[in-house]
Amino acid sequence: MFFTLKWQDSNLTLLDQTKLPTSLEYLEINTVNDLIEAIKKLAVRGAPALGAAGAYGVAIALQQQKKENWSEEQLLKSVSDLKNARPTAVNLAWGVSQVEPLINSGFESVLAKANLIAEADSQANRQMAKLAADWIEKRVTKRPIRALTHCNTGTLATTDWGTALGVIRELFDRKVLSEVFADETRPLLQGARLTAWELSQYGIPHYVLADGAAASTIARGEVDVVLIGADRIAANGDSANKIGSYPLALAAKRAGIPFLVIAPESTIDRNCPTGDEIEIEMRDGSEVLELNGIRIAPQASRGYNPAFDVTPHDLISAVVSEKQVYEGAKIN
Amino acid sequence: MFFTLKWQDSNLTLLDQTKLPTSLEYLEINTVNDLIEAIKKLAVRGAPALGAAGAYGVAIALQQQKKENWSEEQLLKSVSDLKNARPTAVNLAWGVSQVEPLINSGFESVLAKANLIAEADSQANRQMAKLAADWIEKRVTKRPIRALTHCNTGTLATTDWGTALGVIRELFDRKVLSEVFADETRPLLQGARLTAWELSQYGIPHYVLADGAAASTIARGEVDVVLIGADRIAANGDSANKIGSYPLALAAKRAGIPFLVIAPESTIDRNCPTGDEIEIEMRDGSEVLELNGIRIAPQASRGYNPAFDVTPHDLISAVVSEKQVYEGAKIN
Repeated sequence: MFFTLKWQDSNLTLLDQTKLPTSLEYLEINTVNDLIEAIKKLAVRGAPALGAAGAYGVAIALQQQKKENWSEEQLLKSVSDLKNARPTAVNLAWGVSQVEPLINSGFESVLAKANLIAEADSQANRQMAKLAADWIEKRVTKRPIRALTHCNTGTLATTDWGTALGVIRELFDRKVLSEVFADETRPLLQGARLTAWELSQYGIPHYVLADGAAASTIARGEVDVVLIGADRIAANGDSANKIGSYPLALAAKRAGIPFLVIAPESTIDRNCPTGDEIEIEMRDGSEVLELNGIRIAPQASRGYNPAFDVTPHDLISAVVSEKQVYEGAKIN
Repeated sequence: MFFTLKWQDSNLTLLDQTKLPTSLEYLEINTVNDLIEAIKKLAVRGAPALGAAGAYGVAIALQQQKKENWSEEQLLKSVSDLKNARPTAVNLAWGVSQVEPLINSGFESVLAKANLIAEADSQANRQMAKLAADWIEKRVTKRPIRALTHCNTGTLATTDWGTALGVIRELFDRKVLSEVFADETRPLLQGARLTAWELSQYGIPHYVLADGAAASTIARGEVDVVLIGADRIAANGDSANKIGSYPLALAAKRAGIPFLVIAPESTIDRNCPTGDEIEIEMRDGSEVLELNGIRIAPQASRGYNPAFDVTPHDLISAVVSEKQVYEGAKIN
């Protein structure tokens, strides 16, 4: 069908997500610089996918060292550059650090560990999908279930299957879900471009809607559960998610429907006490002021572009990881 | 500077808002069908502007009847089509109904009344701006004040000055307001295109932000008051506004800042008991699936595109008309 990233023929093959949904193109990456470029332009994105990409990147560096006779210094600088390609994406640095101790054991050891990381992510996704789907089947009485989601949290954001979108796939496979409302997710349109594309691939009926339309769609009783991923979860359960998640939680609370956060254990940051301590990445204003490189706002206008927001724990019905369901977002 | 609509040289001249901010072009309208088309494609929009356009439209119909020898039946059908060009905004039908009793008195009487309606709207806007600005100066203690608004409710939405944006202009003139957060307002980007353009014309500092970013910006304490217009206000205070308004009200309530609805008396529909009875216009899905005419979502995706949402009265601090401040949205 398609895959997000895979090691084959001495290359890391990446689906170029900047080209979706218009065309399905893969990038053959065999230099660290090309990988860094792919990460920076968001050809590969999504916290779990970046973790695996980081680990594979170290294998690429070792391969390149051999081919190009790099010094030890060149190798280490290359690995360090990769680690910092997107300073806010914790998982990228995490993936690199998982294989760093194996650098001295050589390419094969690093590659084997990178494959394990990718495989473990895939299994964790299946596991959290089952836990969350069980929870939803128990708590949501209406059939068929209609789910609303935000941004992209599917296979494209992971090594396989997905987090929040993985739960939606699981519910669809269980034949209890009829349709999905996919927020377009401005400014970068990951919902309209990527989630809608994945749902099309899986044959899951869906609507794309403007982010501002989600709250009233929930209020009118057209949604039974809201499912999102997370970028960082504080010790008190406050969750940082793609910008536009917080108003969905407010709407779900008022409508009395569940709001679930689906994320691997590695997203939970027990060293971060509350959402107040989570730094919000401010991205370039041009992402809001321009569309496809064409200016939509007047020249005198400034863009205000936070990439994430924080949903307070009291608005979250449960956090679901591969390990357990944290009811009421009570992290223990 | 610019004007939204004006009767001149036997035509209704309309600023073509679909072309802003790229170019400033006017349409010369002298048939009812052209006016209906302009209304449907949102070349002219905004509840109060539609009220005046509706009244002028009847003058156009009478002019056309004379020129084209219409039967009485043709005339009445034409007026009825105009009245129903857009379902949610009560003002369009209201504007038509204001001049309907004068149809038998002829073109000049209808035109004179339409001019009066336009002039009265302009004066009403100044009056509601003063009432709301007084209210805000009393209730909001922080200085300078930072306001958030949605869609476009300025001169472009009215015959002159504006409703919610008129209040912002009044506060800026009183030197108590420092900056404005203007939601881009997907899918049609009236905020990024029109409100940002108006604010630029008036020299009012402002940010454009994605609609999904508004709630957390409010939660972080960066906004002191939320101001929006209305398309229809039910007898119990429930208000239909541009899609994306309701989540702002939820966020304002949680943050403890005022959420004000600014609209002329003609927007209040005392025959409509609650928001449940307000018909929500569903617009074509392509508005969400495309951006500036370029398809962003996959072909299999359907668009879900309600044009308005309803904010329940308990989330509204006050409705302000040209006549009075309705505290707690208690319409009497």
